[in-house]
Amino acid sequence: MVAADNLQMPHNEAPFDLSAYLKQRQVEVEAALESSIIVTYPEKIYEAMRYSLLAGGKRLRPILCLATCEMAGGTVEMAMPTACALEMIHTMSLIHDDLPAMDNDDYRRGRLTNHKVYGDDIAILAGDGLLAYAFEYIATQTKNVPPERVLRAIAQLGHAVGAAGLVGGQVVDLESEGKSDVTADTLHFIHTHKTAALLEACVVSGGVLAGLEESDLQRLSRYAQNIGLAFQIIDDILDVTATAEELGKTAGKDLQAQKVTYPSLWGIEESRRQAQALIATAKEELTPFGEKAQPLIALADFITNRKN
Amino acid sequence: MVAADNLQMPHNEAPFDLSAYLKQRQVEVEAALESSIIVTYPEKIYEAMRYSLLAGGKRLRPILCLATCEMAGGTVEMAMPTACALEMIHTMSLIHDDLPAMDNDDYRRGRLTNHKVYGDDIAILAGDGLLAYAFEYIATQTKNVPPERVLRAIAQLGHAVGAAGLVGGQVVDLESEGKSDVTADTLHFIHTHKTAALLEACVVSGGVLAGLEESDLQRLSRYAQNIGLAFQIIDDILDVTATAEELGKTAGKDLQAQKVTYPSLWGIEESRRQAQALIATAKEELTPFGEKAQPLIALADFITNRKN
Repeated sequence: MVAADNLQMPHNEAPFDLSAYLKQRQVEVEAALESSIIVTYPEKIYEAMRYSLLAGGKRLRPILCLATCEMAGGTVEMAMPTACALEMIHTMSLIHDDLPAMDNDDYRRGRLTNHKVYGDDIAILAGDGLLAYAFEYIATQTKNVPPERVLRAIAQLGHAVGAAGLVGGQVVDLESEGKSDVTADTLHFIHTHKTAALLEACVVSGGVLAGLEESDLQRLSRYAQNIGLAFQIIDDILDVTATAEELGKTAGKDLQAQKVTYPSLWGIEESRRQAQALIATAKEELTPFGEKAQPLIALADFITNRKN
Repeated sequence: MVAADNLQMPHNEAPFDLSAYLKQRQVEVEAALESSIIVTYPEKIYEAMRYSLLAGGKRLRPILCLATCEMAGGTVEMAMPTACALEMIHTMSLIHDDLPAMDNDDYRRGRLTNHKVYGDDIAILAGDGLLAYAFEYIATQTKNVPPERVLRAIAQLGHAVGAAGLVGGQVVDLESEGKSDVTADTLHFIHTHKTAALLEACVVSGGVLAGLEESDLQRLSRYAQNIGLAFQIIDDILDVTATAEELGKTAGKDLQAQKVTYPSLWGIEESRRQAQALIATAKEELTPFGEKAQPLIALADFITNRKN
């Protein structure tokens, strides 16, 4: 028998290797996404869905979901369908946001946007297809999880993407365009809904699938809201400070569009300080999970230190 | 005590009053839809979602779901959230289909289309919001149904609206536009996906929620596929024969758009004969359900006899 205290991680252990962790998880997520959509007649719509879903990216959202499920005592397998669904939903929101009727972007991650390749009509339908499939996929592919937990994960994702989340954030963002008197409150609303809501769904659904209790789920919500807002502040800072090559998209776009951003409200130094404070608060929420929280703690740091 | 055979309907009973049945169910569905979406900040998106969701209509899809659940031994209450979700999904598909990038329609049911009132950007987001909310609504609002059945209903709806259903049908419809050599097979694909798939989800989800067994669910699938195709044939016939006033939308639109339709392939008389044959086959599938199938049988007849 191994004594219980032998199960504790030794204090002098090597620091957590986030880069290796992300690489391994990314490979697993790519494989799962690759096999999630099979091309069949009418080929064009499946190809359009795959074009954007398999366009690379850091896969932060699915990895957050898998990491949280593992931290909470679940397995990668339990959360993989939900993790894929989160990436499908994120992809849908990018395809629709890029449309000429919305942000009118021609490039995304260095490639032509969906509607530039397939046309506006197919791009709208590809988004609809991904959104519908996300829910079907969780409902049919999740194994070894009690069905009431799966239902709760579905509700979480639906809430995060709908008018109470992503969609609502995008509406206020559109309304604020070209206005110079956007307040910090409005900016906060936009980002807690456009960015933080889906990140919250990532970690909370991971916790729900693993069967965490309510108080722990609330800790995860607060962790996600804080890193979500920090993520957006860093995004705004990078838009000012990074080059187009580093970003894989046009730099200085916010300034050009006269968008109100955190740096324009607070300045770059104060924005950076605020992001760091949010990350510190986020990490504190994970204290009760002990050593198991290492990946989520490292992910929070990764967000503040990223270069693109 | 009432003897068991007293519960059987007497043979000389008055014929089933479909009109009264539809009126009552419609009132219930309207009330449920009305309270399903509360307007809050940002008001515009909730108003846009409600504008199209509460625009009237026959509410055939939710009523089919409720009627099937009751026929299968369930209650209206068990199926109402799914019934509302089906109407949200149907409404989403109309909003997106009407967009300039798609069918470019200015009027729907005699009112301005969503994008004509709220703009293309909000119309896209209102559709997304309704689609996401449909799944959240089933997951959170369904009471007194085992969760594995609710999950299966969610999967059914997701499948019906995605690339394997509505979205796929719309893609082939767009590809066929302006082509004069569209075959009966292609026309069949369009309508089994654009119309029949969602009607199938209506009745099958109603049956699933009530706990029907597999062979009965397959009967319901075949019933729905047949009435779905008949519904579309009648739609095509009405486009030729009805006035704009009767339809509440532009008549003769298909002819104007040089769209291949059932009347253009088969002529009006043969189209009518085919629709009637489909309805007869649909009704035969319901034989094992006996007297309880009356509403679904009357609904099948209603589809062939409708004037708009």
